[in-house]
Amino acid sequence: MSSTPEAPGVIDVAVRARTASHDLALATRAQKDAALHGMADALLAREAEVLAANAEDVARAEAAGTPANVVDRLRLTPDRLAGMAQGLRDVAGLPDPVGEVVRGSTLANGLELRQVRVPFGVVGIIYEARPNVTADAAGICLKSGNAVLLRGSSSARSSNAAIVDVLRDAVVAVGLSADAVQLVPGDTHDSVKELMRARGHVDVLIPRGGAGLIRSVVEESTVPVIETGVGNCHVYVDAAADLEKALAIVLNAKTHRTSVCNAAESLLVHADVADAFLPQVVAALQAAGVTIHGDQAFASYDGVVPATDEDHGTEYLSLDISAAVVGSVDDAIAHIRRFSSGHTEAIVTEDQRAARRFTAAVDSAAVLVNASTRFTDGGEFGFGAEIGISTQKLHARGPMGLPEMTSTKYVVTGDGHVR
Amino acid sequence: MSSTPEAPGVIDVAVRARTASHDLALATRAQKDAALHGMADALLAREAEVLAANAEDVARAEAAGTPANVVDRLRLTPDRLAGMAQGLRDVAGLPDPVGEVVRGSTLANGLELRQVRVPFGVVGIIYEARPNVTADAAGICLKSGNAVLLRGSSSARSSNAAIVDVLRDAVVAVGLSADAVQLVPGDTHDSVKELMRARGHVDVLIPRGGAGLIRSVVEESTVPVIETGVGNCHVYVDAAADLEKALAIVLNAKTHRTSVCNAAESLLVHADVADAFLPQVVAALQAAGVTIHGDQAFASYDGVVPATDEDHGTEYLSLDISAAVVGSVDDAIAHIRRFSSGHTEAIVTEDQRAARRFTAAVDSAAVLVNASTRFTDGGEFGFGAEIGISTQKLHARGPMGLPEMTSTKYVVTGDGHVR
Repeated sequence: MSSTPEAPGVIDVAVRARTASHDLALATRAQKDAALHGMADALLAREAEVLAANAEDVARAEAAGTPANVVDRLRLTPDRLAGMAQGLRDVAGLPDPVGEVVRGSTLANGLELRQVRVPFGVVGIIYEARPNVTADAAGICLKSGNAVLLRGSSSARSSNAAIVDVLRDAVVAVGLSADAVQLVPGDTHDSVKELMRARGHVDVLIPRGGAGLIRSVVEESTVPVIETGVGNCHVYVDAAADLEKALAIVLNAKTHRTSVCNAAESLLVHADVADAFLPQVVAALQAAGVTIHGDQAFASYDGVVPATDEDHGTEYLSLDISAAVVGSVDDAIAHIRRFSSGHTEAIVTEDQRAARRFTAAVDSAAVLVNASTRFTDGGEFGFGAEIGISTQKLHARGPMGLPEMTSTKYVVTGDGHVR
Repeated sequence: MSSTPEAPGVIDVAVRARTASHDLALATRAQKDAALHGMADALLAREAEVLAANAEDVARAEAAGTPANVVDRLRLTPDRLAGMAQGLRDVAGLPDPVGEVVRGSTLANGLELRQVRVPFGVVGIIYEARPNVTADAAGICLKSGNAVLLRGSSSARSSNAAIVDVLRDAVVAVGLSADAVQLVPGDTHDSVKELMRARGHVDVLIPRGGAGLIRSVVEESTVPVIETGVGNCHVYVDAAADLEKALAIVLNAKTHRTSVCNAAESLLVHADVADAFLPQVVAALQAAGVTIHGDQAFASYDGVVPATDEDHGTEYLSLDISAAVVGSVDDAIAHIRRFSSGHTEAIVTEDQRAARRFTAAVDSAAVLVNASTRFTDGGEFGFGAEIGISTQKLHARGPMGLPEMTSTKYVVTGDGHVR
């Protein structure tokens, strides 16, 4: 598709995206919602086309000996396509963030000041072999008024090309430019590099995927980046914890879904409740198939593997958890400062003072009291749609919904005002 | 000061800043305000010490043949020190951004969700030979709960060292760590490079200075950057402009202060009013000592220099302005899209439709109607203090006050909630 010499380069498509973004920024909500419903309808109407393209990718991946769980993420089914379509309709149902007045006042001199949400302009998304992200990201960017450059995995190239074809036709049908949704041409790493260096042409880059992908984008990009996703999440069971709640929260946070960034990867237990809680939690986790990588206190239990510092710093994304006993809330906080990735940490306690200390001193995107780390999620937070979970401190932190996909500008109205 | 082999490196001071930031993040407003007043008092009490250090810098600069206007920016006087002290007291008077609840709700399942402002943690400021920035930046960072690493110009090193000594003593006096305010050791470019690569140790870098400094930081830094300041600001005089207001606004925007980023650098005039307005505006600008770099229409007036594309893209920061006649609001918007640096643009018009089109389609940090570009300023906007004017779209755009010096985190409270 993009290997012919006449094919456009990354900068070419970015320039087209910029032009498309000018109209898209001024599109009404009605127009954008019509596009989103059109995109959903078209995905269903052209199901056969998309599934045939996806079958090519799946066959190639299987022939290359790709692990079954990766092939599974790559595979589309009528059900998964229906889910993508429903996701687009859900985004249509959300309020339009563009034009929202974030703050405003009339200044002493009579100038009327408004800070108004506006689209970024051109957003680049770099992601792995999950073709559903193609539709999700396109929908969220379109609703927030941004032209999107999609750079998926080369292993999903046929699927992504087919999905983008379908989406672009639907965008054109409502009178917007097809270039609001584009694939980044080229499927070698060079095109990712070009995208990361397209400062001025691309306003924001969002990498979605594993730690390695995200680190490389953060290190190499001159385009501003929103870092997403790595979660070495902790659950701290305080001296004043209700141990029944604690057990339920630890089990849920670790085992509800292991491959996600808001799963718990580390357990800390206050020494005062260690004798009471450790036998229960070790037995329950092991019964659920979890391998515990524990400190000395935990390692005295059968089947617990001794933990290294590396264990305490690891995002397992599997049925593994690191575990340690700590002497105080402040020791738990110090442990979290040392090892956390800044995603989500939870305290289980009935002590208001401990909860207040923990929530104030732990500096992560989300800090939870008596709730599972699994709640850090755009859907759970009521945002309706989520482009990712930011673990950086600049711009957006935590689950990113539509408002996080915008910038602002100041609009100031006077009547001949001079200084 | 930092050339001895025992001197700490950039990472060392960043690690100390991180430790200091933990307590600073939890400091009460009363404690921070006491520190700010203490800093102001100490600057006045130790005036002789600071001025003596500054005299060393000034003597060195003069001996090196530094231009008089640069030496003037470097020079401190009792008046300027008093201004710095007053600036610190002004910051003490502003609300504490830390702890502000930005949004919150109770979710359907009973979880209580709050998005709360928190400090970034460690902020690096890279700036030029203006010693007053040392106190201003330290004050704003302290009030917003951030430990600051100050990297001023080597030509101001004695002044900055003296000022930071004074400020650190005042910080300690209220029980906070002196390491909340530190100079970056080393005054070669290597220390700037180390600062830009200190990702994980430094949360945000803010370069304040000329276009060259800002570009190099943006290109080389792996630490997230907030880009400030370059302003190629436009005034567009519409067909429906009140020409009396237009003349006053153009003159004010260009000549009120030429060395600042919100000064006008480009004038656009609708063709319908060119015959009426050009003679007036050319005469008035020239009477004020302004050189006009004009397109064909302007160049037919005596003394107007023909403009190149480079002129239209230049931030002069002097008594120069580029000028062109355009055929419509949309032509003005297209010209601005091509040449603007995205700082501030103004339209002068009595036509609601033109104002609405201009404010919607022009994508700059500030878009003004019937007001001088000089109003884009934290002080004028009522923010009380300003660390700079962001021209980027991520995190903060336009004048940055105390809230823009914070991140947020989600605090979520449940009662044993699991998914």
